[in-house]
Amino acid sequence: MCVFCNIIKHKAEAKIVYETEKVIAFLDIEPISDGHVLVLPKFHADSITKIPQDYLMEVIETAKAIVNVFENDYHHAGYSIMQNGGECCDFGHFHLHVFPRVKGDGFGWTYPEKGGQFTDEIASDLREKISNQISCK
Amino acid sequence: MCVFCNIIKHKAEAKIVYETEKVIAFLDIEPISDGHVLVLPKFHADSITKIPQDYLMEVIETAKAIVNVFENDYHHAGYSIMQNGGECCDFGHFHLHVFPRVKGDGFGWTYPEKGGQFTDEIASDLREKISNQISCK
Repeated sequence: MCVFCNIIKHKAEAKIVYETEKVIAFLDIEPISDGHVLVLPKFHADSITKIPQDYLMEVIETAKAIVNVFENDYHHAGYSIMQNGGECCDFGHFHLHVFPRVKGDGFGWTYPEKGGQFTDEIASDLREKISNQISCK
Repeated sequence: MCVFCNIIKHKAEAKIVYETEKVIAFLDIEPISDGHVLVLPKFHADSITKIPQDYLMEVIETAKAIVNVFENDYHHAGYSIMQNGGECCDFGHFHLHVFPRVKGDGFGWTYPEKGGQFTDEIASDLREKISNQISCK
């Protein structure tokens, strides 16, 4: 059983900060900074491509409202938004990390030893496939 | 002058993979993995809270289409989406990183030495402020 679905069903505890019929937001138990929140659709799926559109839109609106709070109520100068999807998604349930930041806070990314390539071939192939994807919607 | 605005105006080079009236997407010059793309609104602002709604929605739709390509055309098992905002946003121009991943690829986050706190006080205060933020929209 998915831990996040249990929180959604109020069968597991969480420090909930926002909830509607379609979304829930609660504090991350290992916060990067004070106010680090996870925003979830109340729909079990591991990828942005699998969440119903109205759930996804409300997740984005909620993230935006949270950043508004960081900026206007807490006067934070920066923030980050992150989501790991597919097999990189913990518990297989989409969750968007939203947390306040300041420059030089020590948060960063570790790059894979072998990074990606920056080539015309990749761009050209991707361009064709994105175009097909969007025109076939 | 903003480097990203110059790309938008086609005054600076980029490996563009998608473009409409409101958004542009091109390869990151330091890719984490093959196909690492930046998705930008054609509107200069450093935060999700400052981008006009129609631009933001198209940025999200574009990111979703790109993840669809990763999943369906390239059969990648995972992906990540990231955005650093406010003073943590390079060039002060919103850009969403979207890149394919596999488990154990070496990509990760470095946590600040002093992380955040996980307290009822933070949750309670945030809950009140998010509620105000959303009800006052």
